[in-house]
Amino acid sequence: MPIRAVVWGENVHEQTNETVAGIYPRGIHGTIAAALNQDSSISAKTATLQQPEHGLPEARLAETDVLLWWGHAAHGEVADAVVERVAEHVWSGMGLIVLHSGHFSKIFKRLMGTPCSLTWREAGERERLWVTTPGHKIADGLPAYFELEHEEMYGEPFHVPEPLETVFIGWFQGGEVFRAGLTYRRGAGKIFYFQPGHETYPTYHDHNIQRVLQNAVKWAHNPAARLSNVTDAPNRPTHEALETLEERGPKLHKPGEGGFR
Amino acid sequence: MPIRAVVWGENVHEQTNETVAGIYPRGIHGTIAAALNQDSSISAKTATLQQPEHGLPEARLAETDVLLWWGHAAHGEVADAVVERVAEHVWSGMGLIVLHSGHFSKIFKRLMGTPCSLTWREAGERERLWVTTPGHKIADGLPAYFELEHEEMYGEPFHVPEPLETVFIGWFQGGEVFRAGLTYRRGAGKIFYFQPGHETYPTYHDHNIQRVLQNAVKWAHNPAARLSNVTDAPNRPTHEALETLEERGPKLHKPGEGGFR
Amino acid sequence: MPIRAVVWGENVHEQTNETVAGIYPRGIHGTIAAALNQDSSISAKTATLQQPEHGLPEARLAETDVLLWWGHAAHGEVADAVVERVAEHVWSGMGLIVLHSGHFSKIFKRLMGTPCSLTWREAGERERLWVTTPGHKIADGLPAYFELEHEEMYGEPFHVPEPLETVFIGWFQGGEVFRAGLTYRRGAGKIFYFQPGHETYPTYHDHNIQRVLQNAVKWAHNPAARLSNVTDAPNRPTHEALETLEERGPKLHKPGEGGFR
Amino acid sequence: MPIRAVVWGENVHEQTNETVAGIYPRGIHGTIAAALNQDSSISAKTATLQQPEHGLPEARLAETDVLLWWGHAAHGEVADAVVERVAEHVWSGMGLIVLHSGHFSKIFKRLMGTPCSLTWREAGERERLWVTTPGHKIADGLPAYFELEHEEMYGEPFHVPEPLETVFIGWFQGGEVFRAGLTYRRGAGKIFYFQPGHETYPTYHDHNIQRVLQNAVKWAHNPAARLSNVTDAPNRPTHEALETLEERGPKLHKPGEGGFR
Repeated sequence: MPIRAVVWGENVHEQTNETVAGIYPRGIHGTIAAALNQDSSISAKTATLQQPEHGLPEARLAETDVLLWWGHAAHGEVADAVVERVAEHVWSGMGLIVLHSGHFSKIFKRLMGTPCSLTWREAGERERLWVTTPGHKIADGLPAYFELEHEEMYGEPFHVPEPLETVFIGWFQGGEVFRAGLTYRRGAGKIFYFQPGHETYPTYHDHNIQRVLQNAVKWAHNPAARLSNVTDAPNRPTHEALETLEERGPKLHKPGEGGFR
Repeated sequence: MPIRAVVWGENVHEQTNETVAGIYPRGIHGTIAAALNQDSSISAKTATLQQPEHGLPEARLAETDVLLWWGHAAHGEVADAVVERVAEHVWSGMGLIVLHSGHFSKIFKRLMGTPCSLTWREAGERERLWVTTPGHKIADGLPAYFELEHEEMYGEPFHVPEPLETVFIGWFQGGEVFRAGLTYRRGAGKIFYFQPGHETYPTYHDHNIQRVLQNAVKWAHNPAARLSNVTDAPNRPTHEALETLEERGPKLHKPGEGGFR
Repeated sequence: MPIRAVVWGENVHEQTNETVAGIYPRGIHGTIAAALNQDSSISAKTATLQQPEHGLPEARLAETDVLLWWGHAAHGEVADAVVERVAEHVWSGMGLIVLHSGHFSKIFKRLMGTPCSLTWREAGERERLWVTTPGHKIADGLPAYFELEHEEMYGEPFHVPEPLETVFIGWFQGGEVFRAGLTYRRGAGKIFYFQPGHETYPTYHDHNIQRVLQNAVKWAHNPAARLSNVTDAPNRPTHEALETLEERGPKLHKPGEGGFR
Repeated sequence: MPIRAVVWGENVHEQTNETVAGIYPRGIHGTIAAALNQDSSISAKTATLQQPEHGLPEARLAETDVLLWWGHAAHGEVADAVVERVAEHVWSGMGLIVLHSGHFSKIFKRLMGTPCSLTWREAGERERLWVTTPGHKIADGLPAYFELEHEEMYGEPFHVPEPLETVFIGWFQGGEVFRAGLTYRRGAGKIFYFQPGHETYPTYHDHNIQRVLQNAVKWAHNPAARLSNVTDAPNRPTHEALETLEERGPKLHKPGEGGFR
């Protein structure tokens, strides 16, 4: 069975900006999904902000192996309940790939616990992405570096936690650097942040970018059954202790009582 | 100048439970602060839930080098605005030490981005804490292991992100293990989670525990000036680029316009 | 094509100790290989110390996806040239799983850069292994914990670098804890250390242990082509620079000259 | 008492190359030591390859808090016994700062367990170092970035283990990037690798570079007593077990027997 990917698109610029609509007539999400579907091991569909529950009801997330997230102008319109639902699925094992301006999305900030801020410049400058972890699954089939003739500059410091792995670092023509590809784990969920993807440039039509996204979906896919009850703190009563145990000392909780939260 | 520590105590059990009041007549926070003050390089005071703004107004946090956090029964009563304020100070450089049941505090979950759940048992069993990173500043002066004759069992899995360092692991009489001392960095702020400290046992009167807390305050202290504006994403306009740069390609933003959030 | 695993066994105790020979008549390596072969996605063979080049000539390593290593009494007899050869294959992408007393093998110490020391006791005590990263590929299909009625105690501190991930922690009846399952990356090679496996107990006949090893082989397998020349430091001459560049300043090296090593 | 730093210099180019001798008449090591001594909390001296035991006999290392290492042309002339001695001191708590071409030194490769290879170009190009972890002790007092008008290009991939923290990333005029400042821990010893410092440029006369080195010495300093016997694997006999324990099962070792290595 192919990996079930859902590409979530904010779908705002595509409807309001002629330049973006011209580059991405199917939407950014549609272009990314089509690129993923070129890999026979992936089956990608889309969801957008404007759909009921932003296209991400519980039943759909339960059938999603990897979620990709592109947002920019409307982060604040994403319902907190959906953000929390997505977070729980990530903790339980769903993969998550956060793209470009998604660094400021509610879901990314929620999972990182940091501001996720950076510096930026929209000058259409050249970016060169260097592979810093050759042999990583996300870099599979890529050359030592590749270039995007036009990208938005994202510059350090990038206020995220120290990653598990730094897979790409970007060089910008104007003089900045950026950790362009970072991996994290949150619970059973694998997370990849990938910096390129400004909406006024044809980044998601680029072959190398598409390869990174295909690789990242395969890397982030956790084939194990989704964990259940990751937010619970179960009591292990004394009579069920794994070693012989006699209760001692004063107690706060009565038998069978739940813990505080 | 000594390190300015503030010990935040929920101060609920001490007022409502005779056992806890008997062990901690000055409050858990008061006992911890007194222990810290035995180290001349630390000047510790307290703050509690019941005070205005929970004792943590902006002006006070600005003068706090390291905040310690003990809470249990009333996590939900902590105002979100105070949580966010504390988070911003951590990102900017304030140290944070989260104690025991604080694993479920709003501030710890906010900074970790995970459920921070675990298993537990209140049986007064023996815990033995092993130093897994000898020579770490937080383990300074401690033996290879030390014991608490009565502790609440906290068991794995502990749903937190992979730490920077695992400093202690706890062995429990009933058969569980727990990563009892973990370090993190969030922005310029250093964070230490330390598991012992159940309110019905005299844990914070233990000499080794007190030593860990003194060490942790010194480790978490960042003497650099607090960072400013860590949540901002400043634009670096083309005419200020560090290398000669000519704008190219289509643009979304007009000159001088702020970015989306 | 199945994953090509090679189980390297020192094969000394099996020949000299009746107890070990009785438990592992096919050798420890033979038992492990048979267990791996029960998973149709793995094709496992063996190699031993006594074979020419310890059974690990260059041509064989080039066809090995994942190498498992069990050694104890004869670490010092392993030729340094073979150790270096294995290290280069790991850096280039071969997976490596180091078992039990292999913590003191030349190859593990070579790749860790630390003493890899620990404390130990051979008392046939009970060990309980806790999964600390549920949902990790190496823990797939395992319960929250599992027990070995008899294991050698390995205790902290374990002098290894901070791992990428802590997958298992062991609880010992005699009072110790140990980080029993740790992941690392060295170059393109993924490394897993797994503590159980004392030769006088039937550990490798245990179903859960066998599951861990099957999982670990799949986790450590890097399907990408082996990297070439990972130890080279290639010169990128000025006339081949990716951006227009004019040489400036004094030079140490003449054109075309190799770097120092 | 000030931190006792020793700056180890290979001292070859300074004796054989007029350019280098002109920039560093006191030797690279002498210039660095003088810069460190401008900070009153540091007392720095030097050692060189040509001295007996390369200036690093056991007694001297025992009195060294932080060792800095600059080498390039003569890595192979450093005696293996001295390398191993330095490694043991690092594991026991001595700080180590590896500079520039020291990436290929025996001691750095020994402690990393990887090839430590990279790409390079000697073109006198501009490097801009970005602080990626603002608020880190090593970046204290530095601006968001600083420039070196002439540096040797070091490019990714840098074949080192994933660091604890990435403190600096370098941007090069010719189009490359490099993780220029990385932290590690090996045992009780803290390690910092810092990329700038090509011998034909006046890098170590630069004020920002000097500040980084002063900061790094203070960061790497471990004031705790040096650990003893980090390479030992002590037996914990059954009769000394921390919990009541009865020996069971077959044994390989006789009572009191040492373990294999």
